[in-house]
Amino acid sequence: MELVQTFLDQNTKIIDMGADFRLKNLSEWERLYSRKHICPSVVQEAVYGIPELHRDAIKQTNVVANPGCYASACILGMAPLVKAGLVETDHIIVDGLSGTTGAGAELDIPSHHPEIANNIVPYNVIDHRHTYEMEQELSLLSSTRVTVHFTSAYVPITRGILAICHCFPKGPVNRLALLNLYREFYKDEFFIRVFDMPPEPGASWQYVSYPWVSAVSGTNFCHIGLDVDEQRNRIVVFSVLDSVGKGGAHAGVQNLNLLFGLDEHTGLTRHGLHPY
Amino acid sequence: MELVQTFLDQNTKIIDMGADFRLKNLSEWERLYSRKHICPSVVQEAVYGIPELHRDAIKQTNVVANPGCYASACILGMAPLVKAGLVETDHIIVDGLSGTTGAGAELDIPSHHPEIANNIVPYNVIDHRHTYEMEQELSLLSSTRVTVHFTSAYVPITRGILAICHCFPKGPVNRLALLNLYREFYKDEFFIRVFDMPPEPGASWQYVSYPWVSAVSGTNFCHIGLDVDEQRNRIVVFSVLDSVGKGGAHAGVQNLNLLFGLDEHTGLTRHGLHPY
Amino acid sequence: MELVQTFLDQNTKIIDMGADFRLKNLSEWERLYSRKHICPSVVQEAVYGIPELHRDAIKQTNVVANPGCYASACILGMAPLVKAGLVETDHIIVDGLSGTTGAGAELDIPSHHPEIANNIVPYNVIDHRHTYEMEQELSLLSSTRVTVHFTSAYVPITRGILAICHCFPKGPVNRLALLNLYREFYKDEFFIRVFDMPPEPGASWQYVSYPWVSAVSGTNFCHIGLDVDEQRNRIVVFSVLDSVGKGGAHAGVQNLNLLFGLDEHTGLTRHGLHPY
Amino acid sequence: MELVQTFLDQNTKIIDMGADFRLKNLSEWERLYSRKHICPSVVQEAVYGIPELHRDAIKQTNVVANPGCYASACILGMAPLVKAGLVETDHIIVDGLSGTTGAGAELDIPSHHPEIANNIVPYNVIDHRHTYEMEQELSLLSSTRVTVHFTSAYVPITRGILAICHCFPKGPVNRLALLNLYREFYKDEFFIRVFDMPPEPGASWQYVSYPWVSAVSGTNFCHIGLDVDEQRNRIVVFSVLDSVGKGGAHAGVQNLNLLFGLDEHTGLTRHGLHPY
Repeated sequence: MELVQTFLDQNTKIIDMGADFRLKNLSEWERLYSRKHICPSVVQEAVYGIPELHRDAIKQTNVVANPGCYASACILGMAPLVKAGLVETDHIIVDGLSGTTGAGAELDIPSHHPEIANNIVPYNVIDHRHTYEMEQELSLLSSTRVTVHFTSAYVPITRGILAICHCFPKGPVNRLALLNLYREFYKDEFFIRVFDMPPEPGASWQYVSYPWVSAVSGTNFCHIGLDVDEQRNRIVVFSVLDSVGKGGAHAGVQNLNLLFGLDEHTGLTRHGLHPY
Repeated sequence: MELVQTFLDQNTKIIDMGADFRLKNLSEWERLYSRKHICPSVVQEAVYGIPELHRDAIKQTNVVANPGCYASACILGMAPLVKAGLVETDHIIVDGLSGTTGAGAELDIPSHHPEIANNIVPYNVIDHRHTYEMEQELSLLSSTRVTVHFTSAYVPITRGILAICHCFPKGPVNRLALLNLYREFYKDEFFIRVFDMPPEPGASWQYVSYPWVSAVSGTNFCHIGLDVDEQRNRIVVFSVLDSVGKGGAHAGVQNLNLLFGLDEHTGLTRHGLHPY
Repeated sequence: MELVQTFLDQNTKIIDMGADFRLKNLSEWERLYSRKHICPSVVQEAVYGIPELHRDAIKQTNVVANPGCYASACILGMAPLVKAGLVETDHIIVDGLSGTTGAGAELDIPSHHPEIANNIVPYNVIDHRHTYEMEQELSLLSSTRVTVHFTSAYVPITRGILAICHCFPKGPVNRLALLNLYREFYKDEFFIRVFDMPPEPGASWQYVSYPWVSAVSGTNFCHIGLDVDEQRNRIVVFSVLDSVGKGGAHAGVQNLNLLFGLDEHTGLTRHGLHPY
Repeated sequence: MELVQTFLDQNTKIIDMGADFRLKNLSEWERLYSRKHICPSVVQEAVYGIPELHRDAIKQTNVVANPGCYASACILGMAPLVKAGLVETDHIIVDGLSGTTGAGAELDIPSHHPEIANNIVPYNVIDHRHTYEMEQELSLLSSTRVTVHFTSAYVPITRGILAICHCFPKGPVNRLALLNLYREFYKDEFFIRVFDMPPEPGASWQYVSYPWVSAVSGTNFCHIGLDVDEQRNRIVVFSVLDSVGKGGAHAGVQNLNLLFGLDEHTGLTRHGLHPY
């Protein structure tokens, strides 16, 4: 935020890879980031950089706020359900599991191999800053204010995030109908893949009827799957992406392509190493 | 269940490491395990093998039903809150993360190293059989029927389970008060450790204010920690154990010690390799 | 070998991804693979598919024998030294460390996650079949018969091979001179990268003065580095590649490009995810 | 070395867990550790702390030099062959593969999870300080000066070291005879286990005919196995231990037991979690 006005004065478009322009609620931002915001007007002008939700606005803005990694996974995973008004918006519970590149390049305890290699490390388990991005963006899609109960943990993989999103349908739903809802919602989205492989009973590939983070590592793709516990009336949505791919740097390139009128896919068509 | 009557007739005490005597609701058991139960009367006699909840009954029974690994983690993690009547019992959401020994010694896709090493593999994501054990045992502690919304996933560690348990308090609560509740509940329990290290803001050791599975690997210990999102009114409880330790074989030894009047700790005092 | 004559009769060019045409010494091949060879004449016609050594012959043959993964790593790593006649050819010792995709897609004990995740598994520790490829190809470059003492082990990574090659110089050598020899030898080779970062004393990046398998994962690149123990008169060469990249499938594509007169780099320019 | 004289003056026995008293050759030590040694006389009095080689001397000394982890693995692995005079002593080649706890608790690049998790990191690849311990101790067992060509690398496991030791027999040898030699050499040694499971052809358990580091993790045991390439006249010895077990802290306890006349096994009988 220290530099943005200077760039704007020079007619330079900006993609902020940090968090300075993600939250419209300034007092919330100032509390969470323990700083005073110095360019509030730019916050209002900035567009939250998820093209699947804000493509047209991104094309027309000068400032894109590239989203947080967990936020991207959760928002993409929950958007169709929230938009359709199918679920209770005060009981959305999300566990975000992240690989260690999500902790950054800096040396730190939870990415120290002897500590994490046989471990799972919960951290920022309440009031994670990305929660506010999830609530802001999902509330925009909903007629009621959305609350997200988010907890994060590191697991011993290097790349990738799995968001396990639990929510409660207002009425009866089933897996197939919801998969169709998701397919329709993302039908024009190259980078979003909805998983629809229902497991045959006893088939070993039941494991791949839900998205695997290994399949999106190093890519701009986000894979989404789900299931419904009809007996207990719960929906669970799985959303996977690479925190330095669709959840970070690659998303920045996608936004850059949109900002400058390039083909949105430029530089981003690489698929993962994994066959699924 | 095919052998149990023969053993009982010989006055032999039994610890069933399988699932035949865990559920009191026979029709539910028969649906879940796709078989007819052949000794219903023994089911009623059997005691669910969590000593921390059923110590006296275990000492006096002839049949112990050794509990499921996820069930042990979740039940031990939620018991104090449910018993105290502090939380809504229809919105308990649990994500169970397991190492690959939890998948058994048999070769299978989710424990094939090339598939799991950089991956997280959701499986049995709804209606997992252990859910019914959780609901049965927690309901016994509660004045109202408890519903657990449980989802499981493999992570690339070999040993250990982390149960992330979310629930919603009926009234205002705070972390310290709840930790005290847990300490009181488990004050005589050698194998349960309640974590009470509140992180200093910015301290690197915030990571260890929650339990680490690496600390209970190869042991009969269960570590429990928690936090409270006072703003959104949510409690998150972390419960860790080794699925072939306190969640399996070691628990069987603990039950054996009780069944035969031995010191309950015999053979089980080994601590993990990890300092925490 | 069962199919090759049929294809040749139809004027179809062949890249054999198996081992049927790699060894010119038929009796050795028959002993190692416990079978009788049914088309010996094709063996003599076939070209061993390392373009860096046999590019012109590959362009003109109808049958390419795609090399073994360990063989590729060792041959590329040792070729410059052996060709220059600088080292004793009867004391070349190679430890080949492989990720678990090198064990194939089939489920097996050394790629079972609970077994390998905290382990190193030596296997085929003497007389590994790939040894004969190494000896054949390096002997072609040498005025004397080359003996390779090769041992392999699985390490808990999914992709990549590190060949640690030890040999003994006939006269005084130093690191810089040898790096120059390698740079000259591979100066026109796009897919071979010679590492030349001498570590500053105490610099943390000494670790990257030798090749890292993580940098070639999923690619057709082979990185080579080395060091010299001048006091004990030993050279150690490090050669890394991906066993299903430059050590397998990607090498097959490179050979295909050559066989059909395509740009040799077609489909193979992807770099690894790692910065180095 | 700054404190040792003070302690000796108080009649206090010393186990130095560092490297100050390991090497008898002071000028070599001073070059390797870039310091002047301040108590040369204690160096001569100190006993190198491998009980299997120096038990009686350890019992009678006041100063034990606890050995380096790689040195312990290599020395225990090569001692029987060198003592028997069966192998060329100028061509012993050892690759030491270490888990990341071997790198210490300090945060550093090769133990940063994103760097090491899918990687193998060679380091100190020539003239490693532990080489001098190997050469000193093996030379004591030999009629000729022993040279060790040692290279080390980190692999992504947390605990354990595998030393792959190659050497060349002076005359014909075979696996069974050498295993018998090792069994005889270590027949009274509780903490050394010689592996003698010859693989049935095609048996999957060929993998466990060589020692696994996973079996000695967290213990004071060292497992040793070997094989012979009769065709090329090479012996390969595998020696595994835990660098903070038999290769470090546990060895220190074993030395302490000897120094004070306790049962040598006190506190050290814990076996690994692994069945083999």
